[in-house]
Amino acid sequence: MTVTTHQLEFNTQGDAEIQDLTGAVTEVVGGSGMRNGIVTVFCPGSTGAVTTIEFESGALADLKRLFDEIIPQDRDYEHNRRWGDGNGHSHVRAALLGPSLSVPLVDGRLTLGTWQQIIHVDFDNRPRRRKITVQMVGE
Amino acid sequence: MTVTTHQLEFNTQGDAEIQDLTGAVTEVVGGSGMRNGIVTVFCPGSTGAVTTIEFESGALADLKRLFDEIIPQDRDYEHNRRWGDGNGHSHVRAALLGPSLSVPLVDGRLTLGTWQQIIHVDFDNRPRRRKITVQMVGE
Amino acid sequence: MTVTTHQLEFNTQGDAEIQDLTGAVTEVVGGSGMRNGIVTVFCPGSTGAVTTIEFESGALADLKRLFDEIIPQDRDYEHNRRWGDGNGHSHVRAALLGPSLSVPLVDGRLTLGTWQQIIHVDFDNRPRRRKITVQMVGE
Repeated sequence: MTVTTHQLEFNTQGDAEIQDLTGAVTEVVGGSGMRNGIVTVFCPGSTGAVTTIEFESGALADLKRLFDEIIPQDRDYEHNRRWGDGNGHSHVRAALLGPSLSVPLVDGRLTLGTWQQIIHVDFDNRPRRRKITVQMVGE
Repeated sequence: MTVTTHQLEFNTQGDAEIQDLTGAVTEVVGGSGMRNGIVTVFCPGSTGAVTTIEFESGALADLKRLFDEIIPQDRDYEHNRRWGDGNGHSHVRAALLGPSLSVPLVDGRLTLGTWQQIIHVDFDNRPRRRKITVQMVGE
Repeated sequence: MTVTTHQLEFNTQGDAEIQDLTGAVTEVVGGSGMRNGIVTVFCPGSTGAVTTIEFESGALADLKRLFDEIIPQDRDYEHNRRWGDGNGHSHVRAALLGPSLSVPLVDGRLTLGTWQQIIHVDFDNRPRRRKITVQMVGE
């Protein structure tokens, strides 16, 4: 049993830009030689989040609309009154979707469904450079 | 320290049918002989999700109403325009609720509360056969 | 590789009171001597949940408003009709936000962002004594 940790780095434009991390996570897992264990994908930051979805432009647009509807950008936020950075909606969206995802690794393969991809959603209101932690605990 | 993985298989009717997985997960954990570690429950698919709730019909109906209200089935979805399978709402609901759940195992017992059950929600718009991954990493 | 489990105990007032658990989790992790692994924070109960957010009063108020809007307390719930305890909204909120969070531990440090804190939200409608499980699997 070992613990292996990697960082994925990429640029985003913010405004709920969605990145497909599946390929990068699969590559990291493959390179580790680990066959069975738990793979944690974690977003270190309070305006980004991770989950899974079918990565096609329709479903992504539908997901963005949900956040525009239940946590719209263009309204008052207490966070914005205090800090003036205009990303109050980003914090609420990220807290709701959550920063961590756990995917089992079985016989060298992530147990994702065929139409299920690992995504990062950058809810911030400006471009960001993101570092996502991928940690494997297994054998 | 070892890694043990099992699959739970069951049929669902879709349309936000909720299954109580607590008994099956408890049985798998008990059969493994593991005493302490992390138990990951993962839904390999982009139209199902897992969480915990008090498994009584009132709370389940209330949870379903939430999804009917914030992500209703009977409206336009970009996913449906592209793919015509009518389950755009299913994808958004599943992405929001999330595919993974981590439950600590301590002295042979899952640390669930008395009124807290592990559930799978099948958000798809048709009956499905589901295979849920249960993975234990511990000793 | 070892498994270490601790319990955090604290009182809450309920009504979406938010507790910052970051200091307590960091202390538990530091005391364990573990350097690398996965830290699971789990809420054993069906009316509380965990996530991360920037712990400042504006963002916390904005998060509470979201739940007041999409899952308000002052309406009918099937759970309340059956059980009369008035916390139907609490169950739905907790199921949506989720009971588990996984944070990678790398070189003795939780990989949280600078402005990202681990929180427990007590959605119940009355004061509670809470016991949160913190489990580390690593080396």
